[in-house]
Amino acid sequence: MTIKLHCFGESGNAYKAALALQLTELDWEPVFVDFFNGETRTDSYKADLNAMGEAPVMIDGDVRLTQSGVIQYYVVEKNGKLDGATSEDRREVLRWQFWDNHKMSSQAGVARFLMNFLPEDKRPAEVIQFMQGRLRATYAVLDTHLTGRDWIVGRDVTIADLSCCSYLFYPEPFGFDRTDWPAIDRWLTNIEGIPGWKHPYDLMPRGAR
Amino acid sequence: MTIKLHCFGESGNAYKAALALQLTELDWEPVFVDFFNGETRTDSYKADLNAMGEAPVMIDGDVRLTQSGVIQYYVVEKNGKLDGATSEDRREVLRWQFWDNHKMSSQAGVARFLMNFLPEDKRPAEVIQFMQGRLRATYAVLDTHLTGRDWIVGRDVTIADLSCCSYLFYPEPFGFDRTDWPAIDRWLTNIEGIPGWKHPYDLMPRGAR
Repeated sequence: MTIKLHCFGESGNAYKAALALQLTELDWEPVFVDFFNGETRTDSYKADLNAMGEAPVMIDGDVRLTQSGVIQYYVVEKNGKLDGATSEDRREVLRWQFWDNHKMSSQAGVARFLMNFLPEDKRPAEVIQFMQGRLRATYAVLDTHLTGRDWIVGRDVTIADLSCCSYLFYPEPFGFDRTDWPAIDRWLTNIEGIPGWKHPYDLMPRGAR
Repeated sequence: MTIKLHCFGESGNAYKAALALQLTELDWEPVFVDFFNGETRTDSYKADLNAMGEAPVMIDGDVRLTQSGVIQYYVVEKNGKLDGATSEDRREVLRWQFWDNHKMSSQAGVARFLMNFLPEDKRPAEVIQFMQGRLRATYAVLDTHLTGRDWIVGRDVTIADLSCCSYLFYPEPFGFDRTDWPAIDRWLTNIEGIPGWKHPYDLMPRGAR
């Protein structure tokens, strides 16, 4: 049975799940969520797909999962790839996933939304500036960690990489330029080189006008 | 050997780890982190404790862990309590931990910091207002979920509860009043009733003036 991922191209959180499915060659397909026209806030979306009002949502037969990190672990359980090799490394993978959710994607996603998908006269300048300041400190932590390393944990790609990279591939301006961060830049090139890798806009249908 | 938790009372993230240690009656003690005087940003803190520049950090013999969610799972592994009872429930626990990190604590912690621990003339009004608006939507998701339930997952307290409750016990104003959210209010009372429960300011040393 084909796994369905309810998603949209502009969502870095959806990309974390889509890329895990893609790189492990599971049989899956995207189902478009019309986020920009309010689909995730409708009663039917909340009742049938996700009470949290968010994408992505993964459906595999009777299993319905939300939160990209949970879907990533489901993919790991399904085929044994993309997790740390030792219990120590597995804790380290989870650590970077939490860090990404808490410090990076949560802010990068909002900053990018405010700067690109709101009408120009509704973009809150002070909020954008505040988030970009916090994000610079966040990118510095990641860049320092990746200096001298090919992957975030251990010697191969894991779901920690697929979590942390997600928003960093998008072309819209949100205060991140990979050429400013040499170790992040090299690491993103490593990810792009994985067989089967695709850009978020080539993996999921786009919704923004 | 006594587990050391590097923490400070004002940190809801530290409280998530401290409360898990406390409720499982592990032998642990807090080690004060002087966050308000910049300790987490020093080179020695980053080198010796956490390159991410954050609290909490847990030390148990040779094991050093950061990110409250990772420490919570270490406590679960250590004594088998506080996780979901089935694989489905365990995924649900992880789901709410990620949601808390991504949508709730990340914003509640920042809003509370900006409103209470910055000098009055440095508090960014637009940022605070923006975060409070997003937080209201977040509290509504949690309150709806808890309506008719005693705990976030299953029939007993789990680390999902200990994650999501963390900032909600603090007395400083940050736009959350438990009397506005009846299901959250009842659930917080359930948590307060767990044998051994302590308020964050009774569990960890405070740093703010």
